[in-house]
Amino acid sequence: MTTTQAAPALGALHLNASSRFAHLAERHSATLQAAYEAVTTRKFYARWQESPSKKFYGETAAKDGEAAFKAALNKRFEALQQTGETHWHGEEHSPYGFALGVEYPVFAPAMLADRAGAAKHEWRSLSAADRALVLVEALERASALFFTLAYATQHTSGQGFGMAFQATGPHSFERALEVVVVGLAQQMQFADSHLWSKPSGGAALTVQKQFVVVPKGIGLVVGCSTFPIWNTLPGLFASLVTGNPVIVKPHPASVLPIAMVVASMQETLRDLGLNPHIVQFAADASAAPLTRLLAELPEVSLIDFTGGGFGDVIEEIAAKHGKIAFTEKAGVNAIVLESASDLSAALDNIARTLTLYSGQMCTTSQNLFVNRNGVRDAASGSTTSVADVGLMLKQKIDAIMSNPAMASGFAGAIQSEATHKRVEEASALASGSSASASSGASVSIVRASEPIPNAEFADARTASPLVLQADAAAHDIYEREWFGPISFIIPTESFDHSMELVLRSLKAKGALTTLVYTTDAAQRDQASDAIIYEGKAPVAFNYTGDIFVNQSAAYSDFHGAGANPAGTASFSDVAFVANRFNVIGVREVATH
Amino acid sequence: MTTTQAAPALGALHLNASSRFAHLAERHSATLQAAYEAVTTRKFYARWQESPSKKFYGETAAKDGEAAFKAALNKRFEALQQTGETHWHGEEHSPYGFALGVEYPVFAPAMLADRAGAAKHEWRSLSAADRALVLVEALERASALFFTLAYATQHTSGQGFGMAFQATGPHSFERALEVVVVGLAQQMQFADSHLWSKPSGGAALTVQKQFVVVPKGIGLVVGCSTFPIWNTLPGLFASLVTGNPVIVKPHPASVLPIAMVVASMQETLRDLGLNPHIVQFAADASAAPLTRLLAELPEVSLIDFTGGGFGDVIEEIAAKHGKIAFTEKAGVNAIVLESASDLSAALDNIARTLTLYSGQMCTTSQNLFVNRNGVRDAASGSTTSVADVGLMLKQKIDAIMSNPAMASGFAGAIQSEATHKRVEEASALASGSSASASSGASVSIVRASEPIPNAEFADARTASPLVLQADAAAHDIYEREWFGPISFIIPTESFDHSMELVLRSLKAKGALTTLVYTTDAAQRDQASDAIIYEGKAPVAFNYTGDIFVNQSAAYSDFHGAGANPAGTASFSDVAFVANRFNVIGVREVATH
Repeated sequence: MTTTQAAPALGALHLNASSRFAHLAERHSATLQAAYEAVTTRKFYARWQESPSKKFYGETAAKDGEAAFKAALNKRFEALQQTGETHWHGEEHSPYGFALGVEYPVFAPAMLADRAGAAKHEWRSLSAADRALVLVEALERASALFFTLAYATQHTSGQGFGMAFQATGPHSFERALEVVVVGLAQQMQFADSHLWSKPSGGAALTVQKQFVVVPKGIGLVVGCSTFPIWNTLPGLFASLVTGNPVIVKPHPASVLPIAMVVASMQETLRDLGLNPHIVQFAADASAAPLTRLLAELPEVSLIDFTGGGFGDVIEEIAAKHGKIAFTEKAGVNAIVLESASDLSAALDNIARTLTLYSGQMCTTSQNLFVNRNGVRDAASGSTTSVADVGLMLKQKIDAIMSNPAMASGFAGAIQSEATHKRVEEASALASGSSASASSGASVSIVRASEPIPNAEFADARTASPLVLQADAAAHDIYEREWFGPISFIIPTESFDHSMELVLRSLKAKGALTTLVYTTDAAQRDQASDAIIYEGKAPVAFNYTGDIFVNQSAAYSDFHGAGANPAGTASFSDVAFVANRFNVIGVREVATH
Repeated sequence: MTTTQAAPALGALHLNASSRFAHLAERHSATLQAAYEAVTTRKFYARWQESPSKKFYGETAAKDGEAAFKAALNKRFEALQQTGETHWHGEEHSPYGFALGVEYPVFAPAMLADRAGAAKHEWRSLSAADRALVLVEALERASALFFTLAYATQHTSGQGFGMAFQATGPHSFERALEVVVVGLAQQMQFADSHLWSKPSGGAALTVQKQFVVVPKGIGLVVGCSTFPIWNTLPGLFASLVTGNPVIVKPHPASVLPIAMVVASMQETLRDLGLNPHIVQFAADASAAPLTRLLAELPEVSLIDFTGGGFGDVIEEIAAKHGKIAFTEKAGVNAIVLESASDLSAALDNIARTLTLYSGQMCTTSQNLFVNRNGVRDAASGSTTSVADVGLMLKQKIDAIMSNPAMASGFAGAIQSEATHKRVEEASALASGSSASASSGASVSIVRASEPIPNAEFADARTASPLVLQADAAAHDIYEREWFGPISFIIPTESFDHSMELVLRSLKAKGALTTLVYTTDAAQRDQASDAIIYEGKAPVAFNYTGDIFVNQSAAYSDFHGAGANPAGTASFSDVAFVANRFNVIGVREVATH
């Protein structure tokens, strides 16, 4: 791997805002510059504080947010700048045990398309810089809702409060700001006009040229239930910064957080004298889904989708109708545990990765490939058997669970009944009564799942991590995605065998993360080359301490490779924005 | 349309070549910088002289080129660094009336895939800057062949010699250099490594990160018969600069020019100590085409295609198998003639556009929409009827044809028998014996096509421009692409009617060019917005003199919008390179 280029290749962003938005340029230019420097250098940057501390957000922020969340319950959500709904609907139920009772207006797809069409002229007529400034203004204003959004996210996704605050607030907003600057830079790559002059014998040939950013059309962003904001904002802001109005279709189980963000953005647009329908909200019901109808609208050119198997349908619709789809679908993430400089520290890290939000992250590891000859541990100088690795992992998870208050906050609740049932289904694999029996493969329980007592919410739907052991031959079992707190230890014949199984899985199912533990430099290079070039997935090595493979940092880590079967989107690479617009030329012979 | 950003937004390119290619950096850094400045500012730039003058290329260059071309005839083409062919095949016949008699090695697709696979590790391991330097070196060395390539292009495509020189030599090579710098800049957008450090209470969390450019796989570039080099180099160099080995599949009627370029590139690669199979040549026979087999190879991830209807097949293959296709297919280019500051000058320009290379450019206008109330001419102060516009256009084409030597050079020959027959078929539309009769629409001949006498090549296959007049209702006739020297004058009810018909055609068939003549500023803005935003095609206004709508300038004009049904490729926008690689992260906790 070559590292001949350590510094970013391209210079600073020269913003050139219109007089209409000069006040926004004054407010936000420094933010855009800092974010752009971060994405080019990939250094750490944060516009917002990730800690929900009173020190940063004030004495009453948490209480005010909770009050605002509670005030929204059991009534209609009426903050949108959209009218003409066909009916009202809501079906959200907190994984912590109560119905939210919020109803949302439901709009006909054709009306949404018409309104986006009516808003598109104004939005595309702004310069890229002006659009970026408007979007940063929208983020800044919506950031006042961080605590409210945290409660709304906790009680839809089931995330613990601390994670809900970070994931829905600062971390999501940083990703949004990231995509704004990546999209802005791409639109500013080329001059937007030039008086072209070609030497030609006598008089030069001169042509006045304009190079116009032409948005693809209308964007549709389809949200998911577990990260209603984090997975929605990148596509939303990518389509917006490149001039496309957007229709946001939330998952019916997790509507409130994104409804609040869309309402806030619509207010900002309105206050700036812009058409609020540049961003529209399109709730549906699980019994009457609108995703396919919206995706098939001829006006919709761009589709951002996060979720499971329906992503394949979205990709088919896109391929059939010449739309562009950015997807994040099911994937199967692997860990290879071959050798460690400190095995105990490695398993501490893995235990926390498996526990965080009860494994309901698209980045959580599922399969742990362990050399059956044992794991060499440089710290103890010994080799640990697969059985002992399993035992150590069980004990480390048990230790997390031994403090129920901390465990509840860390593991949160199980978002859906389907995931909760999946834990039972996976447990049953070990009983021999399920499909595993027919394939003749052996599955056993390393650590059983049990409820996590929650002192605050007695009815919370919870399940601590289930760890199974499966034969390497049981591809049909462990190569499926078992979304939730379910993981497999898979003994292998060798490091090469582990790598073979990882690559097989990457090619068939894709992944968002891969984690390899080895103290051998040659194995490290072998794994790195195989995973990034052949498996086309990101790879991390030897994680210990407070860095987790299921977390990615805005401005620095690309989330989703966009290169393997787990999805086509990468937050936020160039393709994630460049495919949302074209540059089209207008030429006129210059008069002399 | 806003023009708030006149200067390029991003700074200079900071090249950082490896020591291995330091000698190339010394030679070519200035070229890369100059080309990069040109693409960002869109200003005129030329690395190579477009005139085949002795002043630039030396006294004997033309004669040497002709001799080299003749020496290649009637024998096997043995200059490639590829062995193991299954057989030899050649079927090229000069449109000027003789068989080339050259035979090319034919290779099995599986062998081509294997060799590209063997070459890919070396190529992707180079930095983007090193790849760019190697490619500029390859262009510089191949540029010694400009005159040879000109003769080879003339006697495959049928282009006149002057055009063949420009189109295949300097103009193609500028497009190649353009895509090299666009691709290089995109790969250098982000730093390729960073020691990331996040403040975290006590000690910072630090992660060593690498961001690796991972090529999509193997590129396939499928050439066309009319522009065997010009339409091949952009995709070839775009895939190469982003790290993908490429297989070049020429059109069986126009093999020699690109065979010579590939052979030269393979020599350069070999001389630089690189695997020559980074670029491979894959000739086929029209009776045994390999395009589909090559496109369906699982190793092929990227397909560049120029041609007609088979482009739809390529796009289907790509959509089905998750490949990325950059296509340039059939399109129907329009002119709207509403009013002119100098109608005679406008028709001079149009006459030359229709005549150049006998209309065999994908950018040549086909349909001329003329307001039946007549064309207001500011120069004469009068209004000219549709009939008189037709007569004037006829006379101007006749004038070009009145000098057979000049006409031959300008119009060249007709590349294929199919195109020649198409002229007859189009002429027959006016007889009432063809499909036009059944649709009830009226077609009449404005100017009949006749052979263009060629003093040098008595057997040249030629046809001067056929101009027909068709009813606006005859969509089934004029909304088809009539590739070749065939155009239609279509009387319309009004300017709005003309625009309606243009947009209808753009949405159904797409286009590579649009040209509008109007002296009215409001009409100009109306046309510009409609054509670029709704029709998603480029537009030019009021062309007169020596600027032609069917010509585009490297570094400045985007060729093909990539946004309408005529194709997905645009030379060379960001999407044209950014979709050829992914950036994938490698992370490791930094040890303290």
